[in-house]
Amino acid sequence: MTHAEILSLINRSLVATLAYTDPTGRPDARRVFCTWHRGIGRHLISTNLSSSHAQSLLRNSAACLYFADDTAFEGLCLHGRAQVRTDREAKTMLWHPQDTMYYPGGIDDPDYCVIDFTTDDARYYRFDGKGDLTAAEIAEIDADCALEDGYAKTHGEA
Amino acid sequence: MTHAEILSLINRSLVATLAYTDPTGRPDARRVFCTWHRGIGRHLISTNLSSSHAQSLLRNSAACLYFADDTAFEGLCLHGRAQVRTDREAKTMLWHPQDTMYYPGGIDDPDYCVIDFTTDDARYYRFDGKGDLTAAEIAEIDADCALEDGYAKTHGEA
Repeated sequence: MTHAEILSLINRSLVATLAYTDPTGRPDARRVFCTWHRGIGRHLISTNLSSSHAQSLLRNSAACLYFADDTAFEGLCLHGRAQVRTDREAKTMLWHPQDTMYYPGGIDDPDYCVIDFTTDDARYYRFDGKGDLTAAEIAEIDADCALEDGYAKTHGEA
Repeated sequence: MTHAEILSLINRSLVATLAYTDPTGRPDARRVFCTWHRGIGRHLISTNLSSSHAQSLLRNSAACLYFADDTAFEGLCLHGRAQVRTDREAKTMLWHPQDTMYYPGGIDDPDYCVIDFTTDDARYYRFDGKGDLTAAEIAEIDADCALEDGYAKTHGEA
């Protein structure tokens, strides 16, 4: 896959699978809505602080974020760290007015948090072969990328 | 979700995400073609023995198998163990004539293996709520289920 094809897979995926280790040491996973990206290296996810994945990541931030397009037989596996953020900056950036449906207290709702995933290295898969990307290669690809909400970009949201 | 709805999610999913721990201790994941099921408790996947997921599972069989329907907002997370089998019984059961495309040596190709996943417990998610299933509850649900290839069943294969 070319770098452009990898970025396209990330940007057109609205959901991804987050894999992590639960407090008992078992592999665990969760399907997450994930539309905020900076290239391949950084991804933001808003979620409930009380959820089992946020609570697991607070104890062990090692994680894997997997984007897939089953129709195109494309997969991208990012290995890295997922930081659980409760600072107002991150929470304000990802906030949408309709989120009060999930967080009645608004941006300052104590159950609202942001998972900030940073990629250490990546592996991509496609019918025509697989390949790896190092942190240095990802930094180079991402140099021209901004952190933005791909959903707002493609769906014309404010 | 009712038990029938959980079984429907498994049976109509042709692919699932397998999460596991790599030899360095990091969470890792792979999208896998997974159509052989016995209810909720058992799932068979044919794959390359040389693949990083098979090699990781040989060292640490703790795994998580996640079925999702993003359109219906349904998710099923199975926690359990994934045994890498190279016995002829499992390899013969999952073999299709067209698999020579991936394994030129046929059923006895040394790179062909079967991942045999057994569920310890499960959590399901849907827009209307989540729930857990224990091993005892899964055994009861599965009592009337046979181990069969859901793909052959729905696609009319021999």
